[in-house]
Amino acid sequence: MGKIFVDACFGKETPYTPVWMMRQAGRYLPEYMAVRAEAGNFLNLCHDPKKAAEVTLQPLDIVGVDAAILFSDILVIPDEMGMDLSFVKGEGPKFSDPIKTEADIDRLIGGEEAANKLTYVYETIKLLREELDKRGDNKALIGFTGAPWTLATYMIEGQGTKTYNICKKMMYSNPELLHSILRKVTDVVKLYMENQIESGVDVVQIFDSWAAAIELEKYDEFSWSYMVEIAEYLKEKYPHIPIIMFPKGVAPFIASGRVYGNFDVFGIDWGTSIKMAKEIIGEKYVLQGNMEPCRLYSKEATTEAVENIQNVMGTKRHIFNLGHGILPDVPVENAIHFVNECHRVSGKK
Amino acid sequence: MGKIFVDACFGKETPYTPVWMMRQAGRYLPEYMAVRAEAGNFLNLCHDPKKAAEVTLQPLDIVGVDAAILFSDILVIPDEMGMDLSFVKGEGPKFSDPIKTEADIDRLIGGEEAANKLTYVYETIKLLREELDKRGDNKALIGFTGAPWTLATYMIEGQGTKTYNICKKMMYSNPELLHSILRKVTDVVKLYMENQIESGVDVVQIFDSWAAAIELEKYDEFSWSYMVEIAEYLKEKYPHIPIIMFPKGVAPFIASGRVYGNFDVFGIDWGTSIKMAKEIIGEKYVLQGNMEPCRLYSKEATTEAVENIQNVMGTKRHIFNLGHGILPDVPVENAIHFVNECHRVSGKK
Repeated sequence: MGKIFVDACFGKETPYTPVWMMRQAGRYLPEYMAVRAEAGNFLNLCHDPKKAAEVTLQPLDIVGVDAAILFSDILVIPDEMGMDLSFVKGEGPKFSDPIKTEADIDRLIGGEEAANKLTYVYETIKLLREELDKRGDNKALIGFTGAPWTLATYMIEGQGTKTYNICKKMMYSNPELLHSILRKVTDVVKLYMENQIESGVDVVQIFDSWAAAIELEKYDEFSWSYMVEIAEYLKEKYPHIPIIMFPKGVAPFIASGRVYGNFDVFGIDWGTSIKMAKEIIGEKYVLQGNMEPCRLYSKEATTEAVENIQNVMGTKRHIFNLGHGILPDVPVENAIHFVNECHRVSGKK
Repeated sequence: MGKIFVDACFGKETPYTPVWMMRQAGRYLPEYMAVRAEAGNFLNLCHDPKKAAEVTLQPLDIVGVDAAILFSDILVIPDEMGMDLSFVKGEGPKFSDPIKTEADIDRLIGGEEAANKLTYVYETIKLLREELDKRGDNKALIGFTGAPWTLATYMIEGQGTKTYNICKKMMYSNPELLHSILRKVTDVVKLYMENQIESGVDVVQIFDSWAAAIELEKYDEFSWSYMVEIAEYLKEKYPHIPIIMFPKGVAPFIASGRVYGNFDVFGIDWGTSIKMAKEIIGEKYVLQGNMEPCRLYSKEATTEAVENIQNVMGTKRHIFNLGHGILPDVPVENAIHFVNECHRVSGKK
């Protein structure tokens, strides 16, 4: 029996529309907070395969989603490339020594050496594969990576940023340097995703969380083309593994008609009209999304949105999800309500 | 002789395309920093008509823009409605007592009483009117306000926010309360803009800086309709004063075909394709924008963008601007280069 989530990614008919939520293994779940407290901090939790596997599975049991997404962080990649990652309370991720020059890039660990250091991720996946196979309920496991551009923003700025001004100064004044960083990261990401697949994920998603920081004119050059390169690489080796692209905030890119690439699912953020996306790319790609996550504060608002999305998408070539991650202060029962409503409107018996 | 900037707002033929920059009276100018240092802090500068007028005029003289925009801050409105505004270094604006209930709204000063407290703004405008008339070079003076939604986000969250989760919890769980806040703010904004016009501005701009925080489905209800109401009110009394709407990040709203209202110019942010905007709303509204402000880090990237925008917009129904505010670390000579290039490509002799 095939996995309904994998079938849906390939646009095959499914008995109902599957659903999962970005950040579903997260702070809104008391059970997650308990395991995280045991681990001591977020990064420890990423590094501990047993605990990471445990929190990955929680939303399957508690919320009833159709797919689990590997618990990890996009920044483990630059961390293992030799950058010194830390999470400062209330401030988010920090790298103590941001990339400024070609010499900084040369110092980064690249290729297989970096990809091979991410063993704790592969261990987590193996534990999950074993457990999911044992359960036999055919729920899917999603692996993921950050897009090279999104990873590069942290590597260059040294932290999160509102303006991306250091990255963009580089983009417009020294584009070659930015391309050198993106090249080195892309080469690691390819191997990292390959290792995730070999370890047992059913599907992979590429998160370009900061896609909207790049103007349309430059988006393909500095981000999309690298994501497509990763997808091509994986598709050639693993055609049976669906690939989901999630560039956040790219309504103008979709509207421009310039979306291309060998992948299966396009994740639509909540700021983009899924109706518009369906009209422009819905025949070529299965669409995932896109309920505004803040609707989860209200069951009525959730039902309204699920019905609206269902009305647009019907029961084919669609995967329900939020248009961005679930927030920490959402009541668990509202998340369950969302999942149940997605199943109800799409005909789950 | 009419002002070229006002003529351009009304879509009349002009000898060249005028240009100004959002945040042009700002931290990238050493002359601004000097006056701000004298004032002690940002809020003092807003409250000091003589100094505020001085920094308003600086970019006319230093950078050569075609319009001055009143130096002030959007948050003086909630401040004078009785909220306690402060600027915490490195953290931005704070209100000590955010709006949570109807009783909080009732405590706010409303209508004329609030609008009449903003005398320092009107004094600044009067000084500027006098000085600009004396100069006789027909450069325009732009007044402005924040959109009710954008103001409300600060009033509800108490500060800037990444997630807007408090506002959005209200939007989806208690929309009536949010509408009460928006109603009270809108009524003040109407009178505030009326007073700005009576004091001597030539044009007004409404900044909906956080427009993109609202999903398309709800944008008209919680923001655009209030902006349109303000525009209608002003147009009835002052048809000769152009109105510029600048909702940031609303490509999906433009694409949806739902833009309406009695105003003159639509400001296009850098994340929106000006070509798409021209196709959809360019016949009805003059367009302003939209160079990605980070291109100012490079003269070559600036010239490239100015030429691209010119190629799309031609020399009619367009005002050059950035697609968001100029950043503090932009070299002044690059800002001058931008202005000169806008004038060059549009045929200024």
